[in-house]
Amino acid sequence: MTRTLIGDLAGKIGQEVVVEGWVDTRRDHGKLIFLDLRDRSGLVQAVALPNHEAAQPIAATLRSQWVVRVTGTVNQRPEKMVNAEQTNGTIELEATVIEVLSRAAELPFDSSAELNLDTYLDYLPLTLRGERPRAIFKIQARILRSFRDFLTKQGFTEIQAPKLIGDDAEGGANSFDVAYFGHTAHLAQSPQLYKQIMVGSFERVFATGNVYRAEKHSTTRHINEYTSLDIEMGFIKDHTDVMAMETKILASVMADLAADCTAEFKLLGAEIPTVPETIPALKLRAAQKLITDATGQNCLEEPDLEPAHERWLSDYAKKELGSDFIFITHFPVSKRPFYTYEDETDPGFTKGADLLFRGIEITTLAQRIHDYDTLITSLKNKNLDPEKFSYYLQAFKYGLPPHGGFGLGLERLTARLLNLDNVKEATLFPRDLNRIDHLLSTDK
Amino acid sequence: MTRTLIGDLAGKIGQEVVVEGWVDTRRDHGKLIFLDLRDRSGLVQAVALPNHEAAQPIAATLRSQWVVRVTGTVNQRPEKMVNAEQTNGTIELEATVIEVLSRAAELPFDSSAELNLDTYLDYLPLTLRGERPRAIFKIQARILRSFRDFLTKQGFTEIQAPKLIGDDAEGGANSFDVAYFGHTAHLAQSPQLYKQIMVGSFERVFATGNVYRAEKHSTTRHINEYTSLDIEMGFIKDHTDVMAMETKILASVMADLAADCTAEFKLLGAEIPTVPETIPALKLRAAQKLITDATGQNCLEEPDLEPAHERWLSDYAKKELGSDFIFITHFPVSKRPFYTYEDETDPGFTKGADLLFRGIEITTLAQRIHDYDTLITSLKNKNLDPEKFSYYLQAFKYGLPPHGGFGLGLERLTARLLNLDNVKEATLFPRDLNRIDHLLSTDK
Repeated sequence: MTRTLIGDLAGKIGQEVVVEGWVDTRRDHGKLIFLDLRDRSGLVQAVALPNHEAAQPIAATLRSQWVVRVTGTVNQRPEKMVNAEQTNGTIELEATVIEVLSRAAELPFDSSAELNLDTYLDYLPLTLRGERPRAIFKIQARILRSFRDFLTKQGFTEIQAPKLIGDDAEGGANSFDVAYFGHTAHLAQSPQLYKQIMVGSFERVFATGNVYRAEKHSTTRHINEYTSLDIEMGFIKDHTDVMAMETKILASVMADLAADCTAEFKLLGAEIPTVPETIPALKLRAAQKLITDATGQNCLEEPDLEPAHERWLSDYAKKELGSDFIFITHFPVSKRPFYTYEDETDPGFTKGADLLFRGIEITTLAQRIHDYDTLITSLKNKNLDPEKFSYYLQAFKYGLPPHGGFGLGLERLTARLLNLDNVKEATLFPRDLNRIDHLLSTDK
Repeated sequence: MTRTLIGDLAGKIGQEVVVEGWVDTRRDHGKLIFLDLRDRSGLVQAVALPNHEAAQPIAATLRSQWVVRVTGTVNQRPEKMVNAEQTNGTIELEATVIEVLSRAAELPFDSSAELNLDTYLDYLPLTLRGERPRAIFKIQARILRSFRDFLTKQGFTEIQAPKLIGDDAEGGANSFDVAYFGHTAHLAQSPQLYKQIMVGSFERVFATGNVYRAEKHSTTRHINEYTSLDIEMGFIKDHTDVMAMETKILASVMADLAADCTAEFKLLGAEIPTVPETIPALKLRAAQKLITDATGQNCLEEPDLEPAHERWLSDYAKKELGSDFIFITHFPVSKRPFYTYEDETDPGFTKGADLLFRGIEITTLAQRIHDYDTLITSLKNKNLDPEKFSYYLQAFKYGLPPHGGFGLGLERLTARLLNLDNVKEATLFPRDLNRIDHLLSTDK
């Protein structure tokens, strides 16, 4: 008999079926043994009765995480046993034959225990089977699909940006070194330069892939390997075209989540935000004025936003403007990368924005310099050597239109969307200063 | 006026429009100047006439790759000028205003010149704008989308597998070392161990991302960073379930390419293969017997297939079995990774296959060992230390069903599909022994 998915059982009342999955829990009630069985589609309660000799003695030996094949009959539950809140809460599988496909050792902790983050991470191959992580990463996969689908409809082409790069092109000290056939290569901090190059081929491109930051800080917001959702688009008027595109992308993502992931949001106690038709935007200096006036902390001269000020602005956006999102525009040229476009009408400040979402920056976005000579000047102003960028500079030497784009951290977006305390909970196998799967030893 | 895409011009005859794009070529015919304009949607011929003073003098200065905004009227071409073979071959844009958005330097070679591979790679930011590379990478993006869409419909969940790993888990010498906060990490050669772990959470998972091989050989088939399309699925009968799934995936990809990319295949002179309902399969020993009998070269004792033998078998499959694809199954346990399942009915040989496509292996596929004790024994038989795999082994300690999967190299598939001589032509920014964008210097 072919396997039936647990999620399809409700339509098979009175029929004999075969299900395959994991034992979530076993409850012995004397003669009756109840099993909660899980597969990728859901949970169902199975019962092993004394009269089924190919089922009950085996059921008695089962423990959590054992993998089984159960043949049985789908029954309506007696009325007083119905749990309408639960998936499959109106049915029960009466097991006639149970086969063990795989045994499991005794669990290192009770599956209902609240684990601290380190224990959770120490046992990911086990803990990722829990309903919370499964909901988180199902939502994450849905975000990614939605992002790609929407952009494809908008005429964007997906590109595979390399992660192994030669010179540390963005000029920071935060790149990992790779031993490359007697040379030193680096891990890319973003697909920035490659997606700009590809504007020359496809005008509109996106990339989804890992990027790397060799940052030593250990916070709830940083990981050293993360997934960046990147777009770059040509023939823009200015950065506001990119802001409008990101707004439409986010609206599309939230609509897809509302359609497909309400059960997961409910389980996680999170709410899908509404994306306004136009996300409110403030210049950095206007934002700093608001913060200074409201808090008495003078931040007017700061070139960037402190985490506490990002939170303040998000609260402000939510309370005063009714938005979970707010763009902060016009950061100083001095604090932005060499390729960022300076606003001719506001010298010293850039045509770009950070997007804040529920207290944290999730995107940096900007128009880029497209004129070759201006770009050379900008590199020199940042004390960077144009020679080291000669490959990238070809794109500009041979004609690139006005363009801009953004990078969006998938794990950060997921974490804020689901109100997770730590971005590591939104990262399947997080890498940080102290951990690659296992904790790293302290001897260096 | 808002921009009209060149691909939409045919529906705007008699109307005034604004188009934006690159000058592909300029042809001066005395009073008339013809421009081929390109944007992401296609090509159109524009003409600048002497009576348009805001167009013709500027048209006279334009060169290849300059970026322009052209205001003009869409005209039907005179009958004798119609080129029905061409997109927009029945229309012409009469330019009334031309604005230069970005200038380009003189090209280092004629855009119609046939370039050798090194020159092509030296100038990728320019050469990737050609119609051949654009067709290749449009097809590649379509393959990827098709792969993901089909698997999503089959109940697979996308995962983000880490690329930074601790111990070189697959036990080969072919991994790149990364300096990681005083430790040595490695770049993943595949998402193998993580996708197996995730079978415990989602049963069916896929991953698309970069993988790394620190292999020193320089061939037309190898690159050091490539995109691997990976799946892993639980509750299989054996490797033939995975072969059947790969067959369905490939059929779906080819159907999508036939629907969306016929113009690109035509341009590249390539044919979309038919995927048979069942791809023919031969055991390695049976394949070797065929080769030995046909060629007189005795390969019966070889543990693997030589490239020449892969080509022979592909020719055989095409001529004798009418298939561009052929599975070769049952490689010796000694030549396969530790996690490969041994066929109980054929001891010493594995429940797995290579998929050959037009002369080259594009996939390695197998059922995996799911029993904890068997896996420990297999590790020891390969002289690997189970302690180094303790993280991964948790998945088996806590119950994993029979499962299997495959990895498919996106660039190799693209190259064979399009009959490209070198896999580097199917890689956006290929990394090899001698090149990361630029040629690497030879001093070490």
